[in-house]
Amino acid sequence: MNEERAASEQEAVENDVVARVLASFENTPDARLRLVMTSLVRHLHAFLREVRLTETEWESAIAFLTAAGHITDDRRQEFILLSDVLGASMQTVAINNPVSGGATQATVFGPFFVDDAPHVERGGDIALGAVGEPAWVEGVVTDLRGDPVPGARIEVWEADEDGRYDVQYADARVGGRGYLYSGIDGRYAFWGLTPTPYPIPFDGPVGDLLTATARSPYRAPHLHFMVSAPGLRTLITHIFVRGGEYLDSDSVFGVKESLITDFVVQDAGTPTPDGRELGGRTWSRARFDIVLADSE
Amino acid sequence: MNEERAASEQEAVENDVVARVLASFENTPDARLRLVMTSLVRHLHAFLREVRLTETEWESAIAFLTAAGHITDDRRQEFILLSDVLGASMQTVAINNPVSGGATQATVFGPFFVDDAPHVERGGDIALGAVGEPAWVEGVVTDLRGDPVPGARIEVWEADEDGRYDVQYADARVGGRGYLYSGIDGRYAFWGLTPTPYPIPFDGPVGDLLTATARSPYRAPHLHFMVSAPGLRTLITHIFVRGGEYLDSDSVFGVKESLITDFVVQDAGTPTPDGRELGGRTWSRARFDIVLADSE
Repeated sequence: MNEERAASEQEAVENDVVARVLASFENTPDARLRLVMTSLVRHLHAFLREVRLTETEWESAIAFLTAAGHITDDRRQEFILLSDVLGASMQTVAINNPVSGGATQATVFGPFFVDDAPHVERGGDIALGAVGEPAWVEGVVTDLRGDPVPGARIEVWEADEDGRYDVQYADARVGGRGYLYSGIDGRYAFWGLTPTPYPIPFDGPVGDLLTATARSPYRAPHLHFMVSAPGLRTLITHIFVRGGEYLDSDSVFGVKESLITDFVVQDAGTPTPDGRELGGRTWSRARFDIVLADSE
Repeated sequence: MNEERAASEQEAVENDVVARVLASFENTPDARLRLVMTSLVRHLHAFLREVRLTETEWESAIAFLTAAGHITDDRRQEFILLSDVLGASMQTVAINNPVSGGATQATVFGPFFVDDAPHVERGGDIALGAVGEPAWVEGVVTDLRGDPVPGARIEVWEADEDGRYDVQYADARVGGRGYLYSGIDGRYAFWGLTPTPYPIPFDGPVGDLLTATARSPYRAPHLHFMVSAPGLRTLITHIFVRGGEYLDSDSVFGVKESLITDFVVQDAGTPTPDGRELGGRTWSRARFDIVLADSE
């Protein structure tokens, strides 16, 4: 058989596999699922054919997913990490939070949110014993028309100064997370910690992937927000510390210029906004005004 | 902001995510890994953008992979099943086993091979107590030049008449698998079971996907082979039973016309090739000649 004929026969064989797989999804009752699955199949097979995936590489992929599955539990979510480091999380955020006038930009959710964080009053402390430099964070929640949004639920969560979230502690302590509501004037304020850089968990297959690709696991220092109010689009975002490390190489591609915020460090002894006594420590203050888009 | 401008701004945001992710893999020391990862990122993001994946769908995908990871253990491999039902396994087989003269075609490996199957002599019985209609399978192993291949290692494995592989039994019994060597003339023969159709395991997330897409989990009846010999390309394949169910809708897309084989049913009492006494049962016989390609 000459080479050209072999190549065209080979192409026919590979096209035939794609065609049969696509046909198998033809009777999917839900039109949206049919669309998603057929698109997935086309792109997956295009990838396999483009790189000419070897059987050894296929086995590595199966082993990678298996290891990711086995390290995942209630406190560790390796598949979210995988989605994060491939930029799939950030792309999904971009797709679902289209540029909308002056609305605050969204960023990745990350794997460290928990549903039952404690409630704190406005001006309260979400550190709850987590260690780090105190940070006073305040702002106002408005809609696109500039009207204050009272009663917005503001979930915040962050790592301690060692770069660990409470769910990464060996015990069940809760710290560095909480929720509060904006006031009648849309204003909110709370004590948290000045964010510090930290690596995403890298003792699993995603960490191995980062090592093999010479990528850093570090995230730029940030504080997570999820802000929701009736009739408005829920905002999932972070604020990043201006001047912080890794702003240009955030391991999950979460940084947006508009989310970089000044955390202005205050000398020890500087009076605090609420008179809180910090025992001769430095602290920082940040202002983050939040503009919620209309829900669809 | 007018709609056109918003759309182009949105496109720029999404392109920027892709560009940043691709750039993050630029320093991958291994050129092959760099190529595979950048191709994966391009196709993954193209998929997400094409279907405009919703955040709820993203969450479903994470939950799906998590469930697949948690059901996977030493005896159950949900990620191989996933690869199988998306045709990714069959496509990888097609890519790595290019059409090569008269070489026997390859098909999917499947999740049921085990490394330490028992050795049986030529003419021996690989059923080892697994229940079903006895089948005498014989043939000759040759290379592309038609020369017999002596000492080829022939691994065979199959489900019992209830459609279960031994690794699916509640206990640790071994049955329906074994390996033998071809003789000096390239010939081989063994007793196995006439293959019957069976569903791939469907009590996990892959089964849920098949249900949601109105696909059958059934595989056309088949017997697995893996044949290896020095200097020749290892062949992983099946033979399918001519006239068997699901040949047109095999759940893992494994069927190739050239692999469909006659299992000729013999009346009870018909003398067996080796004089084995079958106690008044029917049995079948099949011939499968194997042509191994040269290794690359």
